[in-house]
Amino acid sequence: MHEFPAASEPAAPDSHTPDHALTVEPDDITAFKQAFRRHAAGVAIVTALRTDGTPVGFTATSLASLAAVPPLASFNMARTASAWPAVAETDYVVIHMLGARNRAVAELMAADNSVRFVGDHWVPGPHGIPLIRDVTGWMLGRIVERLPVHNNAVVVVQIEDGALGDEDEALVYHERAFRRPGDPV
Amino acid sequence: MHEFPAASEPAAPDSHTPDHALTVEPDDITAFKQAFRRHAAGVAIVTALRTDGTPVGFTATSLASLAAVPPLASFNMARTASAWPAVAETDYVVIHMLGARNRAVAELMAADNSVRFVGDHWVPGPHGIPLIRDVTGWMLGRIVERLPVHNNAVVVVQIEDGALGDEDEALVYHERAFRRPGDPV
Repeated sequence: MHEFPAASEPAAPDSHTPDHALTVEPDDITAFKQAFRRHAAGVAIVTALRTDGTPVGFTATSLASLAAVPPLASFNMARTASAWPAVAETDYVVIHMLGARNRAVAELMAADNSVRFVGDHWVPGPHGIPLIRDVTGWMLGRIVERLPVHNNAVVVVQIEDGALGDEDEALVYHERAFRRPGDPV
Repeated sequence: MHEFPAASEPAAPDSHTPDHALTVEPDDITAFKQAFRRHAAGVAIVTALRTDGTPVGFTATSLASLAAVPPLASFNMARTASAWPAVAETDYVVIHMLGARNRAVAELMAADNSVRFVGDHWVPGPHGIPLIRDVTGWMLGRIVERLPVHNNAVVVVQIEDGALGDEDEALVYHERAFRRPGDPV
């Protein structure tokens, strides 16, 4: 999913019981929302820098590995997102892996975009791109593909650099809550 | 990541300590592997049907929402995967959401592809595509984009139908283990 809380979240707590819903929703959209409520996701932050120097970024639950050799990853976003102009116009993003200790910044980077870079939770990083402090890891990604699909885009990056922070339990998003990974099954 | 255990997993338990590794790995690949070890992912199964009627599928940790209206999702796979010919040649896949009770089938669908459909854990579903039994939810996805990137591909589907199964805790993959989502943070 793209900006967060994302479009894949049900519109209302009872939207999984369409029989009782007040609004009629097409079956395909209902199927999609119902199924994605059952899916858990890791939480990441993607940052970029507009050509005028404005830092942009968002909390994403769509980060996925694509290949290890060469090292490729993908994430999804809305082309209406505040970060889209930077992703469309520039070559690099920084992708941050989050731990349980990063819950607050995950929420901040999902809040109104005017407040996302107000504070000392970031520093200018590689290519001047915002680097969020105290994450469990980050990667510098060179954008190699932008695939527009309706008002959204799949973005593919090739990882060129990165570093690890202090270890922590990974941050997971499921059922509209941030969680730690739980017990092995 | 694509077929599973995926390319994003470290090649060896000590590959995150390159100073002590026996093999030299480029910095970009090391950065990628280190960072993705810190990332958790939901687990899904993607199935499809080859034109000759052969069922194919794989366990995926790359499933991501792309948009809710229209309902779009993406997943990543290797173009060397056994399921690729079906994804390349046909129009539909079924995407299954997994719960903790589905751990065994998640492993089976990541095992050698000759054994993935041996058993009664599936039935022919919509368009004859294998439907895994007892999952927490499934969606029928019409393939709308196939983006090749090196030997891999990002696949975008538009959800047309789906249903929910019995509720369960979502299946999460992290640190090379299947887990339940844990406590809220």
